Amino acid sequence: MDLTETRHAAADAIHRLVERGETLATAESLTGGLVAATIVEIPGVSAVYRGGLVVYATDLKAKLAEVPEALLAERGPVDPDVAVALAAGARARCGADWGLATTGVAGPEPQDGKPVGLVYIAVSGPGHAAVRELKLDGNRDAVRTESVTRVLQLLSETLQEASKPA
Amino acid sequence: MDLTETRHAAADAIHRLVERGETLATAESLTGGLVAATIVEIPGVSAVYRGGLVVYATDLKAKLAEVPEALLAERGPVDPDVAVALAAGARARCGADWGLATTGVAGPEPQDGKPVGLVYIAVSGPGHAAVRELKLDGNRDAVRTESVTRVLQLLSETLQEASKPA
Repeated sequence: MDLTETRHAAADAIHRLVERGETLATAESLTGGLVAATIVEIPGVSAVYRGGLVVYATDLKAKLAEVPEALLAERGPVDPDVAVALAAGARARCGADWGLATTGVAGPEPQDGKPVGLVYIAVSGPGHAAVRELKLDGNRDAVRTESVTRVLQLLSETLQEASKPA
Repeated sequence: MDLTETRHAAADAIHRLVERGETLATAESLTGGLVAATIVEIPGVSAVYRGGLVVYATDLKAKLAEVPEALLAERGPVDPDVAVALAAGARARCGADWGLATTGVAGPEPQDGKPVGLVYIAVSGPGHAAVRELKLDGNRDAVRTESVTRVLQLLSETLQEASKPA
C-alpha cells in the first residue's frame, strides 16, 4: 500500500475542485468507504465533499445509487456501465457537481465469474464522464488501496481536461 | 491510533451478527466512511454488511438518512438524537437489521459552538437503541479512529445485551 500516493491523489483532486468552486460525491462497492475516508482526511474538504453511498450489497446499487435494475441483472455489478451509472447516481443523490465510483472484485475469491483484481472506476460530471478498467495484483487491501488512488487520479485528469479551452 | 483495537472491535461485532444471521448498515458524518471501510476489511463480511451512507454535508443527513429536518434545524448535526436518527435511517435506507451512526467534531476547529472531540455514536436495531456521548482527545485522525472503535464496541455490547434471555 502506498498511502502517500493515495493522499497525494486526493489532495490534488480536492485542490482542483476548490479552485473550480465545485462539489464531489462518491459511490463505492469494493472500496467500501475507503474513497470517502481518504477524501475527508484532506484539510478544508468540507467546502467540496458532500457525502457518499457505500453500496456493498448488489441491490443497494439500484436502491441507493439509481443504477438501472435491468443493467445490473444483465451484466452483474462488476461492469463499466454500472461504474458510470454509480458515479452519476452519487452525483444525483448527493447533489454534487462530480461523482466518483468504484466496483470490482477485491478477492480473495472470484465473484460472478469475474477475476480477483478486475475493477472499474468512473467519474461523472457536468458534460464529462470517464471510465477505466483496472487489472490489479495483490491482496484485498492492495486492490482496494490501488483502486482508491486510481479513481482519485482519474478525477484529477478529468478535471484537468475539463479546464482546457474548448 | 490503535488499529489493532479497531479491527478487533469490528471482527467481534461482525462475528456476533454472523451468529445471529442479521445484517448491518452505517451512517457516518465525522468518520466519513471509515466505519464502513473498517467493516469491509473483515473476511466473510459480505453476508452481514449491506452498505452505508456518508452524510458529511448537514443537509444530506436529512435527504439521505431521514433525520427530521426540524431536529437538525433545532439542535444542529452534533446531537445525541441526531445520532440515533442517523442509525435508524441507515437501517431503513439500506434494509438492514442494525444501523450504526457517528456524528461529531473531528477538528481542528470547533463546529456550531461544539468543541473538538465531542462525538455522539449510536446503534439502532430490532427493539434496541443505544447512544453514547464521547469526549475525545487528539487530532482529527485520533478522534476519527477512536470514534470508529467505540461505535463498533457499542454494537457488540448492544448485541450481547440483545442475546440475554428477557
